[in-house]
Amino acid sequence: MVKVAVMGHGVVGSGVVEVIMNHQEGIMKRSAAELDVKYILDIREFPDLPYSDKFTKNFDDILNDDEVKVVAEVMGGVHPAYDFTKACLEAGKSVVTSNKELVATKGAELLKIAKENNVNYLFEASVGGGIPIIRPIGLCLAANDVIEVAGILNGTTNFILTKMIREKMSFEDALKMAQQLGYAERNPAADVEGHDACRKICILASLCYGKHIYPELVHTKGITDITLSDVSYASAWGGVIKLIGQVKKLDDGTLDITVEPMLIEKSSQLANVDDVFNGILVRGDATGDVVFYGKGAGKLPTASAVVADIIDCVQHLKDRKFVFWEDGDESLVKPYGETVFPVYIRAECSDSKAAAAKAAELFADIKVIGRAQAPENELAFTCGAMTAAAQEKAVAELESSGVSVRSKIRISDL
Amino acid sequence: MVKVAVMGHGVVGSGVVEVIMNHQEGIMKRSAAELDVKYILDIREFPDLPYSDKFTKNFDDILNDDEVKVVAEVMGGVHPAYDFTKACLEAGKSVVTSNKELVATKGAELLKIAKENNVNYLFEASVGGGIPIIRPIGLCLAANDVIEVAGILNGTTNFILTKMIREKMSFEDALKMAQQLGYAERNPAADVEGHDACRKICILASLCYGKHIYPELVHTKGITDITLSDVSYASAWGGVIKLIGQVKKLDDGTLDITVEPMLIEKSSQLANVDDVFNGILVRGDATGDVVFYGKGAGKLPTASAVVADIIDCVQHLKDRKFVFWEDGDESLVKPYGETVFPVYIRAECSDSKAAAAKAAELFADIKVIGRAQAPENELAFTCGAMTAAAQEKAVAELESSGVSVRSKIRISDL
Repeated sequence: MVKVAVMGHGVVGSGVVEVIMNHQEGIMKRSAAELDVKYILDIREFPDLPYSDKFTKNFDDILNDDEVKVVAEVMGGVHPAYDFTKACLEAGKSVVTSNKELVATKGAELLKIAKENNVNYLFEASVGGGIPIIRPIGLCLAANDVIEVAGILNGTTNFILTKMIREKMSFEDALKMAQQLGYAERNPAADVEGHDACRKICILASLCYGKHIYPELVHTKGITDITLSDVSYASAWGGVIKLIGQVKKLDDGTLDITVEPMLIEKSSQLANVDDVFNGILVRGDATGDVVFYGKGAGKLPTASAVVADIIDCVQHLKDRKFVFWEDGDESLVKPYGETVFPVYIRAECSDSKAAAAKAAELFADIKVIGRAQAPENELAFTCGAMTAAAQEKAVAELESSGVSVRSKIRISDL
Repeated sequence: MVKVAVMGHGVVGSGVVEVIMNHQEGIMKRSAAELDVKYILDIREFPDLPYSDKFTKNFDDILNDDEVKVVAEVMGGVHPAYDFTKACLEAGKSVVTSNKELVATKGAELLKIAKENNVNYLFEASVGGGIPIIRPIGLCLAANDVIEVAGILNGTTNFILTKMIREKMSFEDALKMAQQLGYAERNPAADVEGHDACRKICILASLCYGKHIYPELVHTKGITDITLSDVSYASAWGGVIKLIGQVKKLDDGTLDITVEPMLIEKSSQLANVDDVFNGILVRGDATGDVVFYGKGAGKLPTASAVVADIIDCVQHLKDRKFVFWEDGDESLVKPYGETVFPVYIRAECSDSKAAAAKAAELFADIKVIGRAQAPENELAFTCGAMTAAAQEKAVAELESSGVSVRSKIRISDL
């Protein structure tokens, strides 16, 4: 019988307790040990639950109980989750978490503390919910150099974009629907502005390349500016718009890492990842492209990933897993302005022929795209690969000729 | 420095040596040990290779060398691979393999021997090539009851079907092309008759449900009877034909397990898995559907999965992984005749209206499908779920009324 504690009894935390209680047989079979939730930490009261006797408001109950070997931190946020995690690791307890914000901001430090104390800090649930991705990258792909990771990492924005693409719903209406269905928070900024996806690509990048990539180093753009016109041009071009978190290693050793909406060709494996689903593509030098697909969030999927980590810790109580990265700094990341990619541009102008001629002077290899019911004063085109800085300069020049650029969206090479 | 041996220097075996040599740094980082290939077992001579000094024709060199801790068996076939694997495990060496035939026929026995000798027998590469699937199922999904596993498990047949669907190539021409491209063997029976996919679904089923499911217990049908007419009706119905290996647990505890061509709706995540790619869907009670996608075969993808298993063994030299299943028998499998599913049927008849009326009497809930350029004497329809035995009976009655049934293809619920 291994005693565990669950810190936080929100959506994921209550799911963790439920999954442990409903899967004792499977857990026994795979960890050769029964799991017993000894404490649940929450400031709220849950008097009516059958396991209400397990609740405590005092973190020290967990910290000072030597019987507790594994702690699940499912509180979210950086404080006090960071302080509690650090204290548990220093006390020789393994910690597992779904807290992507904490892993993305303090991962290197917490992994170092775990290593020094010969315990594990695992976070399978922090990316992709119930989709196994951290462990397959960390271990199964150990015999690969990871060339690129790219994914639809946020279910809320993918739901909104899917509604815009399939039902021609406006961004605002789709967001409202997502909120009504419980897919989006009342304050949706973390999702729609790309911060959630940014934390996840930072975790994947750190894991793949062995150094911590901090979210503030990553160019991050959300989907709030995407319009139905852009959706319609993307379709005419032969693709869809998706919010993509992407990292690839460049020849000079730096990383091209970004979170932004991208045009993706219909034939790409990520183009058909719709609704609240996530899809993550890992490109290895030996395996080629491997794609992981599933529900990226939700109570039970996320909880089952947390419990899988608990089981892994129980199997390795005297043994460390090889999940680790060192601290990192801004030298790892290619400045966004220097990264090179093709784009799609949509503009308003008084004379679309003249505007297209001007664009052809300023951008490489432009191709004008049409769409049904386009207003006369609209111009949309794709252009070949240029640095982001050169694109900005060309946009400024185009605008100084009287053309108003409304959208500029990266074209993915996936 | 951990000494390993590689048994077999064919496509996968030479890939294993190559991956180990090219990824020493990554391997060091993740296993804290350098890997050294001490022996390569092959009856052939390779005098021109830079590592030709490692070759031996004598298995005893490996067996009797206590320095060798991990052995990769990449010979294929049951004998002598079985005997060598057994001897290595009994000598306290961990064994990893890509040999699906051996795992599917002798897995329970070899896993038991591994357990008794406190070593590991791992086989990530036996299903899905470079796609991590065994480990995610075994561990990440530990906190789930697996409701169903279904997949496109054979790249050769998927390539042939893709050519038939996209380019209206005949089965014979598509097979010829697959052979020319090196995707199909000169004797393609194991692929096109479904035996390869059968071995793989047996391995996945054994892993998920904890008892060995032997290939001879599994209804197995290949793609040799699929015609362009069926492909065209599938498209009119709104889907595609794929060769699917599938297992699901029925309410009475038995398994509905089968390998056969199935009609899959276009919107299914498996419908877009094309060419030589594999796609495997795992349906868990907590995670929902998780799909793994990638190249299911090939030298380097398969070799990288073998090397990942070697690394895992090196990390756990004193420790066992929880990959295990017990022996099983025919009582685990629902007889095929008693399994229930809807089907598509294509028939030749003298009077298609009369034939449709007769079919409506014999089958549940029939829906006639049309296609462009259908000959006048052709009838195609889908019918609702019935047992396979009831379908056979209805087909016989339909035929006794002068209608010749040409195709009967299961409709998937995915």
